[in-house]
Amino acid sequence: MATPAWSGLARSRNPEFPGPTAAVAGPEEIRRQNLGAVLRYVHVHGPTSRAELTSRLGLNRSTIGALAADLAAGGLVTEEAPVGVRRAGRPSPVVTPRSDRVYALALTVEADRLRAARIGLGGRILDVREASRPAGMSALDAVGPLAGLVRDMARREVADGLFVGGAVAATDTTRDRDGRIRIGGADATIGTVLGAEVAAGAGFVTGDLADFTGLAEHVRGAATGVDDLIYLHGDLGVSAGIIIGGRLVVGHRGHSGKVGHMVVNPGGLPCGCGSRGCWETEVGEAALLRHAGREPGGRGLVLDVLRAAADGEPTARNAVRQVADWLGFGVANLVNVVNPGTVVFGGSLREIYAAEPDPVRRRLDSIALPASREHVRLRAATLGCDGPLIGAAELAFDTLLADPLHVPATGQPEPGPAGTAT
Amino acid sequence: MATPAWSGLARSRNPEFPGPTAAVAGPEEIRRQNLGAVLRYVHVHGPTSRAELTSRLGLNRSTIGALAADLAAGGLVTEEAPVGVRRAGRPSPVVTPRSDRVYALALTVEADRLRAARIGLGGRILDVREASRPAGMSALDAVGPLAGLVRDMARREVADGLFVGGAVAATDTTRDRDGRIRIGGADATIGTVLGAEVAAGAGFVTGDLADFTGLAEHVRGAATGVDDLIYLHGDLGVSAGIIIGGRLVVGHRGHSGKVGHMVVNPGGLPCGCGSRGCWETEVGEAALLRHAGREPGGRGLVLDVLRAAADGEPTARNAVRQVADWLGFGVANLVNVVNPGTVVFGGSLREIYAAEPDPVRRRLDSIALPASREHVRLRAATLGCDGPLIGAAELAFDTLLADPLHVPATGQPEPGPAGTAT
Repeated sequence: MATPAWSGLARSRNPEFPGPTAAVAGPEEIRRQNLGAVLRYVHVHGPTSRAELTSRLGLNRSTIGALAADLAAGGLVTEEAPVGVRRAGRPSPVVTPRSDRVYALALTVEADRLRAARIGLGGRILDVREASRPAGMSALDAVGPLAGLVRDMARREVADGLFVGGAVAATDTTRDRDGRIRIGGADATIGTVLGAEVAAGAGFVTGDLADFTGLAEHVRGAATGVDDLIYLHGDLGVSAGIIIGGRLVVGHRGHSGKVGHMVVNPGGLPCGCGSRGCWETEVGEAALLRHAGREPGGRGLVLDVLRAAADGEPTARNAVRQVADWLGFGVANLVNVVNPGTVVFGGSLREIYAAEPDPVRRRLDSIALPASREHVRLRAATLGCDGPLIGAAELAFDTLLADPLHVPATGQPEPGPAGTAT
Repeated sequence: MATPAWSGLARSRNPEFPGPTAAVAGPEEIRRQNLGAVLRYVHVHGPTSRAELTSRLGLNRSTIGALAADLAAGGLVTEEAPVGVRRAGRPSPVVTPRSDRVYALALTVEADRLRAARIGLGGRILDVREASRPAGMSALDAVGPLAGLVRDMARREVADGLFVGGAVAATDTTRDRDGRIRIGGADATIGTVLGAEVAAGAGFVTGDLADFTGLAEHVRGAATGVDDLIYLHGDLGVSAGIIIGGRLVVGHRGHSGKVGHMVVNPGGLPCGCGSRGCWETEVGEAALLRHAGREPGGRGLVLDVLRAAADGEPTARNAVRQVADWLGFGVANLVNVVNPGTVVFGGSLREIYAAEPDPVRRRLDSIALPASREHVRLRAATLGCDGPLIGAAELAFDTLLADPLHVPATGQPEPGPAGTAT
C-alpha cells in the first residue's frame, strides 16, 4: 500500500520551521512560490490590501503589485479600491479571493451520513448536499451515492467556474473482510474511483476525517495561530488529527492519530479492534450510553443522554462526568507525548467537553506533567459539522496554492440525469 | 518560559514535505540555500563527487562547480581528484567536508555522567572528555564541570580551527524545588551560562537527550532514510525523541516525548511524577531491578541483571521478559498514535530489546492496529553512547548549514589553567 497521495500536500504554515534546505532552481520557481504565498494569504485571511500584503510577506510594493495583477488576470482574485476608506493619497487596492468562481469539491464519509460540498477559495461553503449512510455501507460503496450528490450540485451552474480539485474525508470505521480496521481513505481507491465518476479524471485527495477536521480548526477554527495541536474527534470511535509545527501528521503509512486504540485500562472492556481497554471503550458514544444505563444505539440516543444531563438527570449527568474523566485521562497521555499548545474537542467529544469541562481538566492536571499541561488550552471545536468539509477543501486547494497559474486542466463535474442522487 | 532556541533549527530532510510556501526574496537567498544544500549533503553523506552532487541536488554542473569552489574558498570543504579512479575523461572532483577544521561542541548532562566532545563537520568525533555526575547534581550545577571539560579539550589546539556552535543534551531528571519535573535543557539558562563560560558569548542550543539522540539515529544511525520514527531512550526514566516528516517534534514548549509518563496501568505503582502506573514504572531501570528481586541501584546493577539473564539465570531472564512485555505495550500505544516507520531502542531499552525482542513484538502485535503495526520496524540503536553527542552536534551545525559563508563570529573556547576539569 502506497503512502496516501495527500501526505505530500500538507504544507507548513509555521514560519519557525523553514522546511528543508533544498536546492532552489531559479526565477520561475521564485515567482511560483510568491504567487502561492499571496494567494494563500488571502485564502486564509480574506480580503487584504496590497499594502498589508507587502508588509506581511516581506516583499516590496512593486513585486506585490505585479503578483496581484497576475493572479487577477488568471481569474483567481479581484482587485478593488477599498470601500469606505477616505484617507489622503491613493488607497491601496484590496485583493480578494474569487470564492464565487474558484472552487473545490469536499466530500465526507461519516459514521451515519455522506456529504458533498462545493467550497469556494477562501473557505466559503457555496453549496452542500447530504445523504444517509446505512449501517454497514463501506467507504467504497459510498462512491455511487457521493457521485450522485456531486452531479446533483452540478445542476446549479457556476458561471465561468474553475474547479481546482477534490478531497474526501472518511471516518475510520471500515473493516477488511478479515476484520482489520482500515481508514476508508487510506485505501486510495475511493479517490480514484470518485475522480473517474464525477470529475473527468481528476483524482480526489483522500484521508481521515479527524485529520482533515483538525486542519480546518487549525486554519479557520478553535486553534488558529497554534502550530502544535491535537484535534480529537468522537463518534462511534475516537480518532485524532495531529498538527505539529503547522503540518498535519500523517504517519509512515497515513495511519497516525488512531488514539481511540491507545490502551488506557489494561483490565478494561474488550474493544472492537480485538484488544482490551482501548480509550474508545471509555469515551466513545457506546461508553456514554453504557454509563447512562441505556441500550446501545445511534446518535439520537447519545443526544438524549446529553440533554437529560443538561436537565440535571442524575444518572445521565454522572455518565457524562465518567466519560469526561476518562477523556482527561487519555488527553493527559497525549499531552505528555506530544506537548500540544491546544487540544480541540469535536464530534460527540465536543458536547462532552462543553457539558463537563471540569472533570477533563481535573484529570489532566492530576496526571500530566506540569511542564506540559500548564500551558495547554482545551477548546471546543468552533466549526461544528462544517469542519470536515472545510478541512477537505483545504487539501483540495493545495495544488492550486502551490502553483496558482498552472492549475491542472480537469473537467468540471457534469450534472447527471435528474434523480441520480440518493 | 520561551520556546527553546533550537526548535527553530530543526530542519526537514523529507523532500515529500516541501515546507511552507513562504515568499522568497531573491538571488542572494537562492545562493545561500544552495550553498547550504551542498554542504549539508556532504555533511550527511560524506565525500561526494561534483557529478553526483549535480544529479542528487538537481542543479546544473556549472552551478555545483561554483558552489563547491565558494565552500572550498570559505575553508569548509576540500576539492580533490578522486583516488583510484581511472576512467576516460576528466575525473569529477570530490567534495569533502573539512572535519579536521570545522567543528562543533557537543555536551551531555546524562543520568550519571557529563560529557563534552569536539565533533567535526561530517559528524566525526575528534575529541571527547567525561566526568561523573554525582546523584542530585542539577543541570545548572553541571555547568562548571562541563566548562572544565571544554577548557581541557581546548588545550589540544585545532590549527586554524573554525568553531561553529555548541549544543547541550540533557536528560529529563531535574526537578524544581517544588517537585516538578523539568527538562534540564528546556531551562535555556544552561545554554546561555555555558556560552558565557566557555565560548565568548556563543549561546549553546539546549534540549532533551532523547530528542537529540533520535535525530542522530535518523541522520546517521538505525533509522536513516526513515522520516517518521520514534527513538525511545531508557535510563532511570524513559523518554522519546519523535521525528515526523523528517523533523524533530519539540512540542509547544519543548516538552514533547515524555512518554515515560503515559499512564499504561492505572492500578499500578506510584511514579516519581506524582501519578500512578506511568510507563516508566514498568520499563525503567528500577522496574528491571524490582522484577529481578534486587535492591534499587545504579547502572552497574542493571548490567548485572542483563548479564545474569544472558547466562540463563531464570529470575533475571524473567525480569527482562516482563520489562520487554511492558515495553511492547507502550510501543503499541505510540504506534497507534504516531504510526512511525521505525521504533529505535536506546540506552537501557536497547539492551532489553536486544536480549528479548520477541515479547516486545508479540505484545505490539497483540494490541496495536494491524494497519499501523504491520509495517513498523523495531531496531536497536546503532550509535551506542555516541548518539547524544552526535545529535547535539547536528543541531550545533544547523546555523552553519543554513548559511555556510556567514558563520556568526564567535570566539573559540580558550584553554583554562591546568587541572580545571573535574
